[in-house]
Amino acid sequence: MVKNKNMNQSFIKNEKIRFKHIDYAGIVFYPRFLEMLNDLVEDWFEEALERPFSKMHETNGIPTVDLKVQFKNAARIGEVLTKQLWVNQLKTSSIICGFKFINQKEQTVLEGEVTLVNVKIQEDRQSIKAEAFSEEMKNKISKYI
Amino acid sequence: MVKNKNMNQSFIKNEKIRFKHIDYAGIVFYPRFLEMLNDLVEDWFEEALERPFSKMHETNGIPTVDLKVQFKNAARIGEVLTKQLWVNQLKTSSIICGFKFINQKEQTVLEGEVTLVNVKIQEDRQSIKAEAFSEEMKNKISKYI
Amino acid sequence: MVKNKNMNQSFIKNEKIRFKHIDYAGIVFYPRFLEMLNDLVEDWFEEALERPFSKMHETNGIPTVDLKVQFKNAARIGEVLTKQLWVNQLKTSSIICGFKFINQKEQTVLEGEVTLVNVKIQEDRQSIKAEAFSEEMKNKISKYI
Amino acid sequence: MVKNKNMNQSFIKNEKIRFKHIDYAGIVFYPRFLEMLNDLVEDWFEEALERPFSKMHETNGIPTVDLKVQFKNAARIGEVLTKQLWVNQLKTSSIICGFKFINQKEQTVLEGEVTLVNVKIQEDRQSIKAEAFSEEMKNKISKYI
Repeated sequence: MVKNKNMNQSFIKNEKIRFKHIDYAGIVFYPRFLEMLNDLVEDWFEEALERPFSKMHETNGIPTVDLKVQFKNAARIGEVLTKQLWVNQLKTSSIICGFKFINQKEQTVLEGEVTLVNVKIQEDRQSIKAEAFSEEMKNKISKYI
Repeated sequence: MVKNKNMNQSFIKNEKIRFKHIDYAGIVFYPRFLEMLNDLVEDWFEEALERPFSKMHETNGIPTVDLKVQFKNAARIGEVLTKQLWVNQLKTSSIICGFKFINQKEQTVLEGEVTLVNVKIQEDRQSIKAEAFSEEMKNKISKYI
Repeated sequence: MVKNKNMNQSFIKNEKIRFKHIDYAGIVFYPRFLEMLNDLVEDWFEEALERPFSKMHETNGIPTVDLKVQFKNAARIGEVLTKQLWVNQLKTSSIICGFKFINQKEQTVLEGEVTLVNVKIQEDRQSIKAEAFSEEMKNKISKYI
Repeated sequence: MVKNKNMNQSFIKNEKIRFKHIDYAGIVFYPRFLEMLNDLVEDWFEEALERPFSKMHETNGIPTVDLKVQFKNAARIGEVLTKQLWVNQLKTSSIICGFKFINQKEQTVLEGEVTLVNVKIQEDRQSIKAEAFSEEMKNKISKYI
Protein backbone atom coordinates (compact mmCIF):
# COMPACT_ATOMS: atom_id res chain seq x y z
CA MET A 1 0.00 0.00 0.00
CA VAL A 2 2.68 2.49 0.93
CA LYS A 3 5.25 3.11 -1.76
CA ASN A 4 8.75 4.17 -0.90
CA LYS A 5 9.09 7.67 -2.28
CA ASN A 6 12.00 9.58 -3.59
CA MET A 7 12.99 11.94 -0.80
CA ASN A 8 13.00 14.81 -3.33
CA GLN A 9 9.28 14.51 -3.89
CA SER A 10 8.48 14.27 -0.20
CA PHE A 11 7.91 16.87 2.48
CA ILE A 12 10.26 16.08 5.38
CA LYS A 13 10.32 17.16 9.05
CA ASN A 14 12.05 15.77 12.13
CA GLU A 15 10.45 15.31 15.53
CA LYS A 16 12.04 14.29 18.81
CA ILE A 17 10.23 11.85 21.07
CA ARG A 18 9.54 13.50 24.41
CA PHE A 19 8.40 12.49 27.87
CA LYS A 20 4.82 13.58 27.14
CA HIS A 21 4.58 11.16 24.19
CA ILE A 22 5.45 7.93 25.99
CA ASP A 23 3.38 5.54 28.03
CA TYR A 24 4.04 3.24 30.96
CA ALA A 25 5.85 0.78 28.67
CA GLY A 26 8.26 3.59 27.72
CA ILE A 27 7.07 3.73 24.10
CA VAL A 28 5.02 6.33 22.23
CA PHE A 29 1.28 6.09 23.03
CA TYR A 30 -0.14 5.73 19.51
CA PRO A 31 -2.65 8.66 19.54
CA ARG A 32 0.44 10.89 20.05
CA PHE A 33 1.78 9.61 16.69
CA LEU A 34 -1.39 10.96 15.07
CA GLU A 35 -0.75 14.36 16.68
CA MET A 36 2.74 14.21 15.11
CA LEU A 37 1.12 13.36 11.76
CA ASN A 38 -1.27 16.30 12.10
CA ASP A 39 1.73 18.56 12.83
CA LEU A 40 3.38 17.26 9.65
CA VAL A 41 0.31 18.09 7.53
CA GLU A 42 0.15 21.51 9.22
CA ASP A 43 3.80 22.21 8.41
CA TRP A 44 3.31 21.04 4.81
CA PHE A 45 0.37 23.40 4.31
CA GLU A 46 2.28 26.31 5.80
CA GLU A 47 5.78 25.80 4.43
CA ALA A 48 5.16 24.11 1.07
CA LEU A 49 1.60 24.98 0.05
CA GLU A 50 1.67 28.54 1.51
CA ARG A 51 -1.68 28.03 3.17
CA PRO A 52 -1.00 28.29 6.91
CA PHE A 53 -3.59 26.83 9.27
CA SER A 54 -3.46 30.15 11.18
CA LYS A 55 -4.99 31.87 8.14
CA MET A 56 -7.09 29.03 6.81
CA HIS A 57 -9.08 27.95 9.84
CA GLU A 58 -11.29 31.00 10.12
CA THR A 59 -13.18 29.96 6.99
CA ASN A 60 -11.80 26.65 5.73
CA GLY A 61 -10.42 23.36 6.92
CA ILE A 62 -8.97 20.06 5.72
CA PRO A 63 -10.55 17.38 7.90
CA THR A 64 -9.19 13.83 7.83
CA VAL A 65 -11.79 11.41 6.48
CA ASP A 66 -9.78 8.21 6.15
CA LEU A 67 -6.68 6.96 7.93
CA LYS A 68 -4.67 3.75 7.60
CA VAL A 69 -1.56 3.21 9.73
CA GLN A 70 0.74 0.29 10.30
CA PHE A 71 2.87 0.57 13.43
CA LYS A 72 6.05 -1.39 12.69
CA ASN A 73 8.52 -0.46 15.41
CA ALA A 74 8.20 1.19 18.81
CA ALA A 75 9.70 4.65 19.37
CA ARG A 76 11.32 5.68 22.65
CA ILE A 77 12.12 8.95 24.45
CA GLY A 78 15.11 10.79 23.01
CA GLU A 79 14.83 9.25 19.53
CA VAL A 80 14.51 11.64 16.58
CA LEU A 81 12.06 10.52 13.91
CA THR A 82 12.14 11.64 10.28
CA LYS A 83 8.57 12.25 9.17
CA GLN A 84 7.97 11.98 5.42
CA LEU A 85 4.77 12.98 3.55
CA TRP A 86 3.87 12.75 -0.14
CA VAL A 87 0.78 12.70 -2.38
CA ASN A 88 -0.57 9.41 -3.73
CA GLN A 89 -3.64 10.89 -5.41
CA LEU A 90 -4.98 14.40 -6.06
CA LYS A 91 -8.74 14.61 -6.63
CA THR A 92 -11.09 17.58 -7.16
CA SER A 93 -11.57 18.40 -3.50
CA SER A 94 -9.47 15.80 -1.68
CA ILE A 95 -5.93 14.41 -1.46
CA ILE A 96 -4.68 10.97 -0.50
CA CYS A 97 -1.28 11.34 1.14
CA GLY A 98 1.21 8.64 1.99
CA PHE A 99 3.41 9.01 5.08
CA LYS A 100 6.25 7.25 6.80
CA PHE A 101 8.11 7.87 10.08
CA ILE A 102 11.67 6.51 10.20
CA ASN A 103 14.03 6.28 13.21
CA GLN A 104 17.76 6.97 13.35
CA LYS A 105 18.56 3.31 12.61
CA GLU A 106 16.55 3.77 9.37
CA GLN A 107 13.82 1.44 10.60
CA THR A 108 10.23 2.27 9.68
CA VAL A 109 8.38 3.21 12.86
CA LEU A 110 5.06 3.60 11.08
CA GLU A 111 3.65 4.12 7.62
CA GLY A 112 0.23 4.69 6.16
CA GLU A 113 -2.17 6.71 4.10
CA VAL A 114 -4.42 9.62 5.03
CA THR A 115 -7.25 11.24 3.04
CA LEU A 116 -7.85 14.97 3.55
CA VAL A 117 -10.85 16.87 2.21
CA ASN A 118 -10.78 20.56 1.36
CA VAL A 119 -13.84 22.14 3.01
CA LYS A 120 -15.48 25.52 3.45
CA ILE A 121 -16.99 26.27 6.86
CA GLN A 122 -20.54 27.57 6.41
CA GLU A 123 -21.59 30.88 7.95
CA ASP A 124 -23.41 29.31 10.89
CA ARG A 125 -20.06 27.66 11.87
CA GLN A 126 -22.16 24.48 12.29
CA SER A 127 -21.69 22.79 8.93
CA ILE A 128 -18.97 22.28 6.35
CA LYS A 129 -19.04 21.61 2.60
CA ALA A 130 -16.41 20.10 0.27
CA GLU A 131 -14.84 22.69 -2.05
CA ALA A 132 -12.69 22.13 -5.15
CA PHE A 133 -8.99 23.01 -4.84
CA SER A 134 -7.96 26.12 -6.80
CA GLU A 135 -5.65 25.65 -9.81
CA GLU A 136 -2.88 27.33 -7.87
CA MET A 137 -3.26 24.87 -4.95
CA LYS A 138 -3.37 21.93 -7.38
CA ASN A 139 -0.08 23.06 -8.91
CA LYS A 140 1.59 23.31 -5.52
CA ILE A 141 0.23 19.95 -4.36
CA SER A 142 1.29 18.27 -7.64
CA LYS A 143 4.96 18.73 -6.81
CA TYR A 144 4.59 16.11 -4.09
CA ILE A 145 3.00 13.40 -6.26
CA MET B 1 -14.73 -3.71 5.51
CA VAL B 2 -16.63 -2.98 8.69
CA LYS B 3 -19.58 -5.24 9.30
CA ASN B 4 -22.55 -4.08 11.30
CA LYS B 5 -22.61 -6.29 14.35
CA ASN B 6 -25.37 -7.56 16.53
CA MET B 7 -25.24 -5.35 19.62
CA ASN B 8 -25.36 -8.51 21.78
CA GLN B 9 -21.96 -9.61 20.54
CA SER B 10 -20.40 -6.18 20.97
CA PHE B 11 -18.80 -4.44 23.91
CA ILE B 12 -20.53 -1.06 24.34
CA LYS B 13 -19.57 2.13 26.22
CA ASN B 14 -20.76 5.72 25.99
CA GLU B 15 -18.55 8.80 25.95
CA LYS B 16 -19.48 12.45 26.09
CA ILE B 17 -17.67 14.94 23.87
CA ARG B 18 -15.95 17.54 26.01
CA PHE B 19 -14.26 20.90 25.57
CA LYS B 20 -10.79 19.28 25.61
CA HIS B 21 -11.67 17.08 22.61
CA ILE B 22 -12.66 19.79 20.16
CA ASP B 23 -10.63 22.00 17.87
CA TYR B 24 -11.02 25.50 16.51
CA ALA B 25 -13.70 24.32 14.08
CA GLY B 26 -15.73 23.09 17.08
CA ILE B 27 -15.38 19.41 16.13
CA VAL B 28 -13.39 16.58 17.68
CA PHE B 29 -9.66 16.75 16.80
CA TYR B 30 -9.16 13.25 15.36
CA PRO B 31 -6.24 12.08 17.56
CA ARG B 32 -8.70 12.51 20.49
CA PHE B 33 -10.96 9.89 18.84
CA LEU B 34 -8.06 7.43 19.03
CA GLU B 35 -7.71 8.17 22.74
CA MET B 36 -11.44 7.33 23.04
CA LEU B 37 -10.79 4.09 21.13
CA ASN B 38 -7.92 3.22 23.45
CA ASP B 39 -10.22 3.84 26.43
CA LEU B 40 -12.76 1.45 24.87
CA VAL B 41 -10.16 -1.33 24.48
CA GLU B 42 -9.01 -0.64 28.07
CA ASP B 43 -12.59 -0.96 29.38
CA TRP B 44 -13.15 -4.15 27.36
CA PHE B 45 -10.01 -5.76 28.81
CA GLU B 46 -11.00 -4.78 32.35
CA GLU B 47 -14.75 -5.34 32.32
CA ALA B 48 -15.23 -8.18 29.83
CA LEU B 49 -11.90 -10.01 29.64
CA GLU B 50 -11.02 -9.54 33.34
CA ARG B 51 -7.51 -8.44 32.47
CA PRO B 52 -7.27 -4.85 33.71
CA PHE B 53 -4.49 -2.69 32.28
CA SER B 54 -3.60 -1.73 35.87
CA LYS B 55 -2.52 -5.33 36.50
CA MET B 56 -1.32 -6.22 33.02
CA HIS B 57 1.09 -3.43 32.23
CA GLU B 58 3.83 -4.37 34.67
CA THR B 59 4.71 -7.41 32.55
CA ASN B 60 2.52 -7.44 29.44
CA GLY B 61 0.89 -5.19 26.89
CA ILE B 62 -1.34 -5.20 23.83
CA PRO B 63 0.20 -2.69 21.42
CA THR B 64 -1.75 -1.56 18.37
CA VAL B 65 0.02 -2.66 15.17
CA ASP B 66 -2.55 -1.77 12.52
CA LEU B 67 -5.34 0.80 12.43
CA LYS B 68 -7.91 1.70 9.77
CA VAL B 69 -10.50 4.41 10.45
CA GLN B 70 -13.09 6.13 8.32
CA PHE B 71 -14.36 9.41 9.78
CA LYS B 72 -17.94 9.78 8.48
CA ASN B 73 -19.52 12.56 10.54
CA ALA B 74 -18.14 15.27 12.79
CA ALA B 75 -18.82 15.14 16.54
CA ARG B 76 -19.44 18.27 18.61
CA ILE B 77 -19.21 19.23 22.29
CA GLY B 78 -22.09 17.92 24.39
CA GLU B 79 -22.88 14.96 22.11
CA VAL B 80 -22.84 11.49 23.64
CA LEU B 81 -21.29 8.82 21.43
CA THR B 82 -22.01 5.10 21.68
CA LYS B 83 -18.73 3.26 21.20
CA GLN B 84 -19.04 -0.33 19.97
CA LEU B 85 -16.24 -2.95 19.77
CA TRP B 86 -16.26 -6.55 18.51
CA VAL B 87 -13.82 -9.18 17.26
CA ASN B 88 -13.41 -9.83 13.53
CA GLN B 89 -10.61 -12.37 13.87
CA LEU B 90 -8.86 -14.16 16.74
CA LYS B 91 -5.36 -15.42 15.96
CA THR B 92 -2.69 -17.13 18.11
CA SER B 93 -1.25 -13.96 19.60
CA SER B 94 -3.31 -11.16 18.02
CA ILE B 95 -6.89 -9.97 17.56
CA ILE B 96 -8.46 -7.91 14.80
CA CYS B 97 -11.29 -5.85 16.29
CA GLY B 98 -13.97 -3.88 14.48
CA PHE B 99 -15.28 -0.67 16.04
CA LYS B 100 -17.93 1.94 15.39
CA PHE B 101 -18.86 5.21 17.15
CA ILE B 102 -22.48 6.30 16.70
CA ASN B 103 -24.08 9.63 17.70
CA GLN B 104 -27.50 10.24 19.23
CA LYS B 105 -29.10 10.65 15.79
CA GLU B 106 -27.83 7.10 15.04
CA GLN B 107 -25.34 8.43 12.48
CA THR B 108 -21.97 6.71 12.23
CA VAL B 109 -19.30 9.13 13.42
CA LEU B 110 -16.45 6.76 12.63
CA GLU B 111 -15.81 3.08 12.02
CA GLY B 112 -12.75 0.95 11.47
CA GLU B 113 -10.58 -1.96 12.37
CA VAL B 114 -7.69 -2.26 14.82
CA THR B 115 -5.16 -5.08 15.27
CA LEU B 116 -3.82 -5.69 18.77
CA VAL B 117 -0.91 -8.00 19.60
CA ASN B 118 -0.51 -9.79 22.91
CA VAL B 119 3.06 -9.18 24.09
CA LYS B 120 5.33 -9.95 27.01
CA ILE B 121 7.67 -7.19 28.15
CA GLN B 122 11.20 -8.60 28.47
CA GLU B 123 13.15 -8.21 31.70
CA ASP B 124 15.28 -5.32 30.49
CA ARG B 125 12.02 -3.33 29.89
CA GLN B 126 13.56 -2.47 26.51
CA SER B 127 12.05 -5.12 24.26
CA ILE B 128 8.77 -6.96 23.81
CA LYS B 129 7.85 -10.35 22.33
CA ALA B 130 4.54 -11.68 20.95
CA GLU B 131 2.96 -14.30 23.23
CA ALA B 132 0.10 -16.72 22.50
CA PHE B 133 -3.22 -16.00 24.25
CA SER B 134 -4.11 -18.51 26.98
CA GLU B 135 -7.10 -20.84 26.37
CA GLU B 136 -9.01 -18.93 29.05
CA MET B 137 -8.42 -15.60 27.28
CA LYS B 138 -9.38 -17.14 23.93
CA ASN B 139 -12.68 -18.28 25.40
CA LYS B 140 -13.46 -14.85 26.78
CA ILE B 141 -12.49 -13.10 23.55
CA SER B 142 -14.54 -15.57 21.45
CA LYS B 143 -17.79 -14.26 22.94
CA TYR B 144 -17.27 -11.04 20.96
CA ILE B 145 -16.71 -12.67 17.54
CA MET C 1 -4.53 28.35 51.39
CA VAL C 2 -6.98 25.57 50.60
CA LYS C 3 -9.75 25.12 53.13
CA ASN C 4 -11.36 21.76 53.70
CA LYS C 5 -14.95 22.22 52.63
CA ASN C 6 -18.16 20.64 53.74
CA MET C 7 -18.99 18.09 51.03
CA ASN C 8 -22.55 19.53 50.91
CA GLN C 9 -21.30 22.85 49.57
CA SER C 10 -19.00 21.25 47.01
CA PHE C 11 -19.54 20.01 43.48
CA ILE C 12 -18.29 16.40 43.32
CA LYS C 13 -17.37 14.10 40.41
CA ASN C 14 -15.34 10.89 40.20
CA GLU C 15 -12.73 10.11 37.58
CA LYS C 16 -10.87 6.89 36.94
CA ILE C 17 -7.16 7.02 36.11
CA ARG C 18 -6.57 5.50 32.68
CA PHE C 19 -3.65 4.32 30.59
CA LYS C 20 -3.62 7.59 28.61
CA HIS C 21 -3.08 9.63 31.80
CA ILE C 22 0.07 7.94 33.06
CA ASP C 23 3.71 8.42 32.21
CA TYR C 24 6.75 6.17 32.10
CA ALA C 25 6.94 6.19 35.91
CA GLY C 26 3.40 4.76 36.00
CA ILE C 27 1.91 7.91 37.58
CA VAL C 28 -0.36 10.61 36.17
CA PHE C 29 1.53 13.11 33.95
CA TYR C 30 0.57 16.39 35.64
CA PRO C 31 -0.86 18.26 32.61
CA ARG C 32 -3.46 15.44 32.47
CA PHE C 33 -4.58 16.46 36.00
CA LEU C 34 -5.34 19.93 34.62
CA GLU C 35 -7.48 18.36 31.88
CA MET C 36 -9.35 16.54 34.68
CA LEU C 37 -9.77 19.88 36.47
CA ASN C 38 -11.10 21.48 33.29
CA ASP C 39 -13.59 18.59 32.96
CA LEU C 40 -14.71 19.26 36.55
CA VAL C 41 -15.34 22.95 35.85
CA GLU C 42 -17.16 21.96 32.63
CA ASP C 43 -19.42 19.53 34.53
CA TRP C 44 -20.10 22.13 37.23
CA PHE C 45 -21.18 24.71 34.65
CA GLU C 46 -23.43 22.20 32.90
CA GLU C 47 -24.93 20.29 35.80
CA ALA C 48 -25.02 22.83 38.60
CA LEU C 49 -24.99 26.26 36.95
CA GLU C 50 -27.10 25.23 33.93
CA ARG C 51 -24.69 26.89 31.55
CA PRO C 52 -23.32 24.07 29.40
CA PHE C 53 -20.07 24.74 27.53
CA SER C 54 -21.81 23.39 24.39
CA LYS C 55 -24.14 26.40 24.49
CA MET C 56 -21.81 28.96 26.00
CA HIS C 57 -18.74 28.73 23.79
CA GLU C 58 -20.25 30.26 20.66
CA THR C 59 -20.31 33.67 22.32
CA ASN C 60 -18.77 33.41 25.78
CA GLY C 61 -16.05 31.70 27.73
CA ILE C 62 -14.54 31.36 31.19
CA PRO C 63 -10.79 31.38 30.68
CA THR C 64 -8.49 30.42 33.53
CA VAL C 65 -6.32 33.38 34.56
CA ASP C 66 -4.64 32.06 37.69
CA LEU C 67 -3.84 28.56 38.88
CA LYS C 68 -2.16 27.25 42.01
CA VAL C 69 -1.76 23.50 42.56
CA GLN C 70 0.04 21.40 45.13
CA PHE C 71 0.63 17.80 44.06
CA LYS C 72 0.68 15.78 47.29
CA ASN C 73 0.43 12.13 46.25
CA ALA C 74 0.90 10.28 42.97
CA ALA C 75 -2.10 8.66 41.28
CA ARG C 76 -1.84 5.35 39.39
CA ILE C 77 -3.84 3.57 36.70
CA GLY C 78 -7.08 1.99 37.96
CA GLU C 79 -7.48 4.38 40.92
CA VAL C 80 -10.72 6.34 41.16
CA LEU C 81 -10.30 9.94 42.29
CA THR C 82 -13.00 12.05 43.91
CA LYS C 83 -12.78 15.54 42.45
CA GLN C 84 -14.21 18.31 44.64
CA LEU C 85 -14.82 21.95 43.62
CA TRP C 86 -16.15 24.92 45.60
CA VAL C 87 -16.13 28.73 45.50
CA ASN C 88 -13.71 30.70 47.68
CA GLN C 89 -14.66 34.13 46.32
CA LEU C 90 -17.30 35.49 43.94
CA LYS C 91 -16.43 38.82 42.27
CA THR C 92 -18.23 40.92 39.63
CA SER C 93 -16.90 39.05 36.62
CA SER C 94 -14.66 36.36 38.11
CA ILE C 95 -14.69 33.47 40.57
CA ILE C 96 -11.91 31.99 42.67
CA CYS C 97 -12.58 28.27 43.12
CA GLY C 98 -10.90 25.83 45.46
CA PHE C 99 -10.43 22.21 44.40
CA LYS C 100 -9.17 18.94 45.81
CA PHE C 101 -8.70 15.46 44.31
CA ILE C 102 -8.80 12.60 46.83
CA ASN C 103 -7.95 8.92 46.26
CA GLN C 104 -9.75 5.85 47.62
CA LYS C 105 -7.49 5.75 50.70
CA GLU C 106 -8.75 9.31 51.42
CA GLN C 107 -5.32 10.79 50.72
CA THR C 108 -5.17 14.18 49.01
CA VAL C 109 -3.70 13.69 45.54
CA LEU C 110 -3.73 17.40 44.76
CA GLU C 111 -5.36 20.62 45.91
CA GLY C 112 -5.35 24.18 44.76
CA GLU C 113 -7.13 27.30 43.64
CA VAL C 114 -8.19 28.45 40.19
CA THR C 115 -9.48 31.86 39.05
CA LEU C 116 -11.98 31.92 36.18
CA VAL C 117 -13.09 35.07 34.37
CA ASN C 118 -16.47 35.44 32.69
CA VAL C 119 -15.84 36.82 29.19
CA LYS C 120 -17.72 37.77 26.07
CA ILE C 121 -16.09 36.88 22.74
CA GLN C 122 -16.10 39.94 20.48
CA GLU C 123 -17.61 39.75 16.99
CA ASP C 124 -14.28 39.44 15.21
CA ARG C 125 -13.63 36.24 17.26
CA GLN C 126 -10.17 37.74 17.88
CA SER C 127 -10.66 39.42 21.23
CA ILE C 128 -12.49 38.86 24.49
CA LYS C 129 -13.80 41.19 27.19
CA ALA C 130 -14.67 40.56 30.85
CA GLU C 131 -18.42 40.67 31.51
CA ALA C 132 -20.27 40.85 34.83
CA PHE C 133 -22.10 37.70 35.96
CA SER C 134 -25.91 37.99 35.81
CA GLU C 135 -27.84 38.00 39.11
CA GLU C 136 -29.19 34.55 38.25
CA MET C 137 -25.68 33.17 37.74
CA LYS C 138 -24.50 34.80 40.97
CA ASN C 139 -27.30 33.08 42.87
CA LYS C 140 -26.41 29.70 41.43
CA ILE C 141 -22.69 30.17 42.08
CA SER C 142 -23.34 31.36 45.65
CA LYS C 143 -24.59 27.92 46.70
CA TYR C 144 -21.03 26.63 46.39
CA ILE C 145 -19.38 29.29 48.58
CA MET D 1 6.19 36.84 42.77
CA VAL D 2 7.93 36.34 39.47
CA LYS D 3 11.07 38.38 39.00
CA ASN D 4 12.17 39.46 35.59
CA LYS D 5 15.43 37.70 35.00
CA ASN D 6 18.50 38.58 33.06
CA MET D 7 18.23 36.55 29.85
CA ASN D 8 21.84 35.40 30.37
CA GLN D 9 20.93 33.49 33.48
CA SER D 10 17.88 31.90 31.92
CA PHE D 11 17.38 28.79 29.83
CA ILE D 12 15.51 29.80 26.65
CA LYS D 13 13.57 27.83 24.03
CA ASN D 14 11.02 28.84 21.41
CA GLU D 15 7.77 27.02 20.67
CA LYS D 16 5.26 27.59 17.90
CA ILE D 17 1.56 27.42 18.68
CA ARG D 18 -0.05 24.67 16.61
CA PHE D 19 -3.54 23.51 15.70
CA LYS D 20 -3.45 20.78 18.37
CA HIS D 21 -2.87 23.36 21.14
CA ILE D 22 -5.90 25.55 20.54
CA ASP D 23 -9.49 25.27 21.63
CA TYR D 24 -12.82 26.30 20.16
CA ALA D 25 -12.13 29.94 21.04
CA GLY D 26 -8.97 29.77 18.94
CA ILE D 27 -6.63 30.17 21.92
CA VAL D 28 -4.31 27.72 23.65
CA PHE D 29 -6.19 25.29 25.94
CA TYR D 30 -4.30 25.86 29.21
CA PRO D 31 -3.30 22.24 29.99
CA ARG D 32 -1.33 22.39 26.70
CA PHE D 33 0.73 25.28 28.19
CA LEU D 34 1.76 22.91 30.99
CA GLU D 35 2.90 20.36 28.42
CA MET D 36 5.00 23.15 26.89
CA LEU D 37 6.41 23.90 30.35
CA ASN D 38 7.24 20.23 30.88
CA ASP D 39 9.04 20.23 27.50
CA LEU D 40 11.04 23.25 28.66
CA VAL D 41 12.14 21.51 31.87
CA GLU D 42 12.98 18.40 29.80
CA ASP D 43 15.14 20.45 27.41
CA TRP D 44 16.86 22.20 30.32
CA PHE D 45 17.78 18.87 31.95
CA GLU D 46 19.09 17.49 28.66
CA GLU D 47 20.85 20.49 27.16
CA ALA D 48 22.02 22.46 30.18
CA LEU D 49 22.21 19.99 33.07
CA GLU D 50 23.37 17.03 30.93
CA ARG D 51 20.83 14.74 32.52
CA PRO D 52 18.50 13.69 29.70
CA PHE D 53 15.09 12.31 30.64
CA SER D 54 15.79 9.39 28.27
CA LYS D 55 18.58 8.25 30.61
CA MET D 56 17.15 9.43 33.91
CA HIS D 57 13.68 7.94 33.90
CA GLU D 58 14.65 4.30 34.30
CA THR D 59 15.73 4.96 37.88
CA ASN D 60 15.00 8.57 38.76
CA GLY D 61 12.54 11.38 38.20
CA ILE D 62 11.82 15.00 38.98
CA PRO D 63 8.09 15.17 39.73
CA THR D 64 6.38 18.53 40.00
CA VAL D 65 5.04 19.10 43.52
CA ASP D 66 3.92 22.72 43.34
CA LEU D 67 2.81 24.92 40.47
CA LYS D 68 1.69 28.54 40.30
CA VAL D 69 0.77 30.12 36.96
CA GLN D 70 -0.74 33.43 35.95
CA PHE D 71 -2.18 33.46 32.44
CA LYS D 72 -1.85 37.07 31.25
CA ASN D 73 -2.50 37.02 27.50
CA ALA D 74 -4.02 34.49 25.14
CA ALA D 75 -1.82 32.77 22.54
CA ARG D 76 -3.07 31.90 19.05
CA ILE D 77 -2.08 29.48 16.30
CA GLY D 78 1.02 30.53 14.36
CA GLU D 79 2.50 32.62 17.18
CA VAL D 80 6.00 31.75 18.37
CA LEU D 81 6.48 31.94 22.13
CA THR D 82 9.82 32.44 23.86
CA LYS D 83 9.89 30.18 26.90
CA GLN D 84 12.24 31.27 29.68
CA LEU D 85 13.24 29.23 32.77
CA TRP D 86 15.47 30.09 35.72
CA VAL D 87 16.12 29.00 39.32
CA ASN D 88 14.64 30.96 42.23
CA GLN D 89 15.84 28.59 44.95
CA LEU D 90 18.06 25.52 45.12
CA LYS D 91 17.45 23.22 48.10
CA THR D 92 18.95 19.85 49.10
CA SER D 93 16.65 17.71 46.97
CA SER D 94 14.38 20.24 45.24
CA ILE D 95 14.45 23.32 43.04
CA ILE D 96 12.01 26.19 42.73
CA CYS D 97 12.09 27.48 39.16
CA GLY D 98 10.57 30.65 37.76
CA PHE D 99 9.26 30.67 34.19
CA LYS D 100 7.79 33.10 31.70
CA PHE D 101 6.38 32.68 28.17
CA ILE D 102 6.55 35.80 25.99
CA ASN D 103 4.97 36.39 22.57
CA GLN D 104 6.45 38.17 19.55
CA LYS D 105 4.98 41.51 20.67
CA GLU D 106 6.98 41.03 23.91
CA GLN D 107 3.80 40.59 25.93
CA THR D 108 3.87 38.10 28.78
CA VAL D 109 1.58 35.21 27.90
CA LEU D 110 2.06 33.47 31.23
CA GLU D 111 4.46 33.41 34.15
CA GLY D 112 4.81 31.39 37.30
CA GLU D 113 6.82 29.19 39.58
CA VAL D 114 7.25 25.42 39.67
CA THR D 115 8.81 23.22 42.36
CA LEU D 116 10.57 20.04 41.22
CA VAL D 117 11.79 17.30 43.54
CA ASN D 118 14.71 15.02 42.75
CA VAL D 119 13.56 11.45 43.43
CA LYS D 120 14.82 7.90 43.20
CA ILE D 121 12.35 5.26 41.99
CA GLN D 122 12.40 2.30 44.38
CA GLU D 123 13.01 -1.22 43.09
CA ASP D 124 9.34 -2.25 43.14
CA ARG D 125 8.62 0.66 40.72
CA GLN D 126 5.73 1.47 43.06
CA SER D 127 7.25 4.10 45.29
CA ILE D 128 9.64 7.02 45.08
CA LYS D 129 11.92 8.74 47.60
CA ALA D 130 13.47 12.23 47.62
CA GLU D 131 17.23 12.18 47.01
CA ALA D 132 19.80 14.96 47.51
CA PHE D 133 21.25 16.52 44.35
CA SER D 134 24.91 15.63 43.73
CA GLU D 135 27.51 18.43 44.04
CA GLU D 136 27.98 18.28 40.26
CA MET D 137 24.26 18.79 39.64
CA LYS D 138 24.16 21.63 42.18
CA ASN D 139 26.96 23.39 40.32
CA LYS D 140 25.18 23.08 37.01
CA ILE D 141 21.86 24.21 38.44
CA SER D 142 23.51 27.17 40.20
CA LYS D 143 24.34 28.83 36.89
CA TYR D 144 20.63 29.55 36.43
CA ILE D 145 20.04 31.21 39.80
